[in-house]
Amino acid sequence: MPQSTDRTPTATGVPVDADLPGHVERELASYLAGRRRQAEEIDGDFTAAVDALSDFVLGGGKRIRPTFAWWGWRGAGGAPDGRQAPAVLRAVSALELLQACALVHDDLMDDSARRRGAPTIHVAFAQRHRSAGLRGAPERFGLAAAVLLGDLALAWADDMLVDAGLESAALRRAKDPWQAMRTEVLGGQYLDVLTQARGDESTEAALRVPRLKTAAYTVERPLHLGAALAGAPPELVAAFRRFGADLGIAFQLRDDLLGVFGDPDVTGKPAGDDLREGKRTLLVALGLERAEAAGRAAAATLLRESVGDPELTGERVAEVRELLVELGAVDAVERRIATLTESAQATLAAAPVAAPAAQRLGELAIAATRRER
Amino acid sequence: MPQSTDRTPTATGVPVDADLPGHVERELASYLAGRRRQAEEIDGDFTAAVDALSDFVLGGGKRIRPTFAWWGWRGAGGAPDGRQAPAVLRAVSALELLQACALVHDDLMDDSARRRGAPTIHVAFAQRHRSAGLRGAPERFGLAAAVLLGDLALAWADDMLVDAGLESAALRRAKDPWQAMRTEVLGGQYLDVLTQARGDESTEAALRVPRLKTAAYTVERPLHLGAALAGAPPELVAAFRRFGADLGIAFQLRDDLLGVFGDPDVTGKPAGDDLREGKRTLLVALGLERAEAAGRAAAATLLRESVGDPELTGERVAEVRELLVELGAVDAVERRIATLTESAQATLAAAPVAAPAAQRLGELAIAATRRER
Repeated sequence: MPQSTDRTPTATGVPVDADLPGHVERELASYLAGRRRQAEEIDGDFTAAVDALSDFVLGGGKRIRPTFAWWGWRGAGGAPDGRQAPAVLRAVSALELLQACALVHDDLMDDSARRRGAPTIHVAFAQRHRSAGLRGAPERFGLAAAVLLGDLALAWADDMLVDAGLESAALRRAKDPWQAMRTEVLGGQYLDVLTQARGDESTEAALRVPRLKTAAYTVERPLHLGAALAGAPPELVAAFRRFGADLGIAFQLRDDLLGVFGDPDVTGKPAGDDLREGKRTLLVALGLERAEAAGRAAAATLLRESVGDPELTGERVAEVRELLVELGAVDAVERRIATLTESAQATLAAAPVAAPAAQRLGELAIAATRRER
Repeated sequence: MPQSTDRTPTATGVPVDADLPGHVERELASYLAGRRRQAEEIDGDFTAAVDALSDFVLGGGKRIRPTFAWWGWRGAGGAPDGRQAPAVLRAVSALELLQACALVHDDLMDDSARRRGAPTIHVAFAQRHRSAGLRGAPERFGLAAAVLLGDLALAWADDMLVDAGLESAALRRAKDPWQAMRTEVLGGQYLDVLTQARGDESTEAALRVPRLKTAAYTVERPLHLGAALAGAPPELVAAFRRFGADLGIAFQLRDDLLGVFGDPDVTGKPAGDDLREGKRTLLVALGLERAEAAGRAAAATLLRESVGDPELTGERVAEVRELLVELGAVDAVERRIATLTESAQATLAAAPVAAPAAQRLGELAIAATRRER
């Protein structure tokens, strides 16, 4: 429902506050249409590749990062009917291009077949190669297309931020969170790959990755970016960052649970895919820790052999699920999610966050961490 | 030899004009050392990966793009002893981070084993994986590291430009060439891959890629960037771009010849590697065109079967070389290089380029296109 303070007239008449995802998508569609016209001047074949990237960007996603960034800006006093609001909306929408790079490259690295209910970029381009009967290995063509389109999304994320029309002081303030976020997400992805390759079973390693890849990248830095755009005082930035760090880890822990227990129709990925991919989650780390502590060697072996087994059957996935519940690992993760969410809410309650952002951020915290997503 | 107009005091006492590569490397080393300290705050394992990227960036390269950008700035009136000179030097050095991304990702896409006399990033990280006895396929680990370190270089290129300390008007002027260049090089790489996959034998296709990948990215846009930083008038920018487009294609044609005829000790790549990779160069396109026109079916077949054959023997490489000479393809490419270089020099001579940049750019044109490199 529209907030009383939101009186921005928009093309659709719907206030930004009331439909962030819709507004973000319109900004992205408009930006990408402009880049498409530039691509046409370069080459028609390149335009076709750009179209695939646009379809990917516009083809779904919860727009969670722009949403946190917008509410960070609103919470620091940004006025939705103010002169800077359209530029801020464009600036925070750029986060979705960054996310497109992360997803396209991540899917390539994990060799995931599907994303958002469609083939991933590297798989789709391998298929184009195959259908057209081109030379060389289709997989190599798919790899190249995914590398390059991910790079393009990364470069365009920067361009979209710079071209958002922000006042130069606001753009300067955006620099620190923007730069930190890009490095942190890439660092997080690298550590994720490394942790899996090492088969590191510790709970420390299992928390190191979400701290960077989800907490910093998905919640903390978007909030920081929004607050910086509004020129927030340091104590508010600090509160947002604490809130974001707690909430972001809770969010990742929920995602880990969904990766094993989630409904494929909702997650868009086959059941148990996180297990097949060998993700070293806190859920798995706690399961192993508890199995060892209880002297249940067979249970530990089942877990170890299942995590990272690309051929894991649905039956085995069901066994692992039962085991994780029985060992109390699921309850322990749920408790951790609850504690982190409470801590985040307490930080938020104590911070000088402008209404109605405090309420919306509180709701987002609940939505991001609840069981049914 | 130091130019009389260059009185910049530098750490080493050598004027920037007199040793561009040396100064660019010091800027890169200093920038990367700063980023390393940030990486250390994130994680020690990430720092080790950042070190590999730094070694790659600092491990060689002719620094040709920063050199053209610097002389574009100097030619548009930038003063090496002026207040903006240190910031401009840092800004043009950022082009080497962009280039690091292009090379790391290109090597991954081509599955090249060596670069600058050392293993490529994806090969080096696969080797680390193997040596440490980690889980999963070493090649997948190498792929992930190359994707992520290339991304990091791309993100840091933007950061280094933004943090160069440029006046805000200069940074705003840099936007257009910087954005165009990033999109053009990625478009060029994509079209390169596509042209190879299609086995497109036309001379048009063979020239489309160098126009973007080399002319625009290596010469035209760096000169444009430098000129924009200096606030050059449109006619000078246009002249630089014409000069850059001609010279850039000439430069690529020389590179194509070296890719088939070059000395591995100089190029750092095995002899004939361009043939094995299936590069659709003008050299090959002209060879085929001439073989067909002369009704030499066996020669055309030999060429077709050799280009893109990963198992091509040294003996076969020698046969292809002889054939390309005999068909007159080598002479035709040499003539094209000479014509383009003359046209570039004529553009330069007619443009209002400040001394000593006119002379240096003329020398660079000769150096970039001469037989011995």
